[in-house]
Amino acid sequence: MSGDLQHFFDTYRPSVDRALTERVRALKTPETLKEAMMYSLEAGGKRVRPLLSLAVLQCYRPVEEEDLPAASAVELIHTYSLVHDDLPSMDDDDWRRGQPTNHKKFGEAAAILAGDALQTTAFSWIVEADRPASADARLQLVQELAEASGSEGMVGGQMADLEGEKQSLTLEELEYIHHHKTGDLLTYAAVSGSLIAEAADEDVENWRAFGRELGLVFQIKDDILDVEGSLEEMGKSSGSDETKEKSTYPKLLTLEGAKEKLAHHIEQAEKVLGRMTVDTSLLTAFLQYIGQRNH
Amino acid sequence: MSGDLQHFFDTYRPSVDRALTERVRALKTPETLKEAMMYSLEAGGKRVRPLLSLAVLQCYRPVEEEDLPAASAVELIHTYSLVHDDLPSMDDDDWRRGQPTNHKKFGEAAAILAGDALQTTAFSWIVEADRPASADARLQLVQELAEASGSEGMVGGQMADLEGEKQSLTLEELEYIHHHKTGDLLTYAAVSGSLIAEAADEDVENWRAFGRELGLVFQIKDDILDVEGSLEEMGKSSGSDETKEKSTYPKLLTLEGAKEKLAHHIEQAEKVLGRMTVDTSLLTAFLQYIGQRNH
Repeated sequence: MSGDLQHFFDTYRPSVDRALTERVRALKTPETLKEAMMYSLEAGGKRVRPLLSLAVLQCYRPVEEEDLPAASAVELIHTYSLVHDDLPSMDDDDWRRGQPTNHKKFGEAAAILAGDALQTTAFSWIVEADRPASADARLQLVQELAEASGSEGMVGGQMADLEGEKQSLTLEELEYIHHHKTGDLLTYAAVSGSLIAEAADEDVENWRAFGRELGLVFQIKDDILDVEGSLEEMGKSSGSDETKEKSTYPKLLTLEGAKEKLAHHIEQAEKVLGRMTVDTSLLTAFLQYIGQRNH
Repeated sequence: MSGDLQHFFDTYRPSVDRALTERVRALKTPETLKEAMMYSLEAGGKRVRPLLSLAVLQCYRPVEEEDLPAASAVELIHTYSLVHDDLPSMDDDDWRRGQPTNHKKFGEAAAILAGDALQTTAFSWIVEADRPASADARLQLVQELAEASGSEGMVGGQMADLEGEKQSLTLEELEYIHHHKTGDLLTYAAVSGSLIAEAADEDVENWRAFGRELGLVFQIKDDILDVEGSLEEMGKSSGSDETKEKSTYPKLLTLEGAKEKLAHHIEQAEKVLGRMTVDTSLLTAFLQYIGQRNH
């Protein structure tokens, strides 16, 4: 990871962590529900999405404390999706990042409700945020987040993924799943940074294009890691997608083909950054980090 | 039911039904997910919440087609909550309104995802609505709906309800559950009508006070019906709360005491209506309908 990006992460990851946990801890809600919400928020996520949002924002102006709620809301959506995806009727996972999953710890009912409430809280944080100051920008954030996470976005992708698990998919079907299940929320994160900055519409659309490429880079790399990763590096058994007979990029394109596709999308993302009129060097580093990570 | 209220329901219930189903049918999402969302939306709900919203709105001006998305969004939240509450790990209900529950029909995974997506869709509809035209009014609708339905509202109430099922509760604990599990969304519905009308803040607060009383009337009446109702009238076995050993108003206050409490809150709600400067006769009728219904 580049020194600048490392410095950026070291500075803002604690701020994101604090914003997430302090605000959720302050909710007036039954203790069990709050504990279940906190448990998954504190489970050691890398905060990729809020940090991506803040990285885009800092292309326009320095990040301020007031930016954290709107930028962190996407992590609530991401966390709720993990809690629900882990449920027995979905992916049926007992462990996540070395800890029992939410429903193993709190029971299924509390896990479902914690996920439901985390989703709602995300929308609260955006509308109540002091930044962006403009009501229109906050409305657009709600609209974009709802689109990215709802039936035409993340949830649609998860549904298609569940239905596709036992079939061999075409590349087109696999891309539908990844675009929506993972890509839409990463795209939203990039877009949200520019909306918090109240950037020009043209910039917002460039960040959308960048986010789409970054989402593909993230997912293709994920599939490659699943083939190549070792047990120690992944924190879960590698090759788990294969055990589940899931379609992946390496399976459809060969490992070599998947790596070529990864390089192609990194290049496309760099091209989009080249079109921007602000200093995007931190995003070039972010892109490299996502494309070259080993877990 | 008063003739005016019957006429209002006959006019706008079909409009609400149409708004809900046409807009969900138009979503670009995997077929199973859409079918699961549609199934519960079309399961014969009385649309009490959207109709309450529209009844408040029409105190200010005639209802227009453009009002339907924002006014109907609350029904998406209500429907998602029923789908999730029926799940095996929650209330474990196989039947609702004479039909198999969502997870019995589509499986648990699809039911969880359909609920998740219905929640998201509610927020989309408000921000994308043409009415209210003001961005601030739409932001306030999102904020109020998130508060009413999230961890400090409906979901908090459902969590407390699940935890309280096997204990005998104090009246205070029972009121916490009802205020949040049922009351908050009814209160939101009343408030939302005034926000769609872009009414003065003082009026919005009066509608909030009215909504709180109406929510209590709804729940106390529900508990009384559960004791008194016959199998035919309820469409489910009466006394089902008793089977589950749930605390209810009649159990804590006696049936007579619950009826007195019902009359008290009807009176309080009427007092609030008396303070309003617009013609609230339709809401007087709505209140009577909620307090005197037999199913």
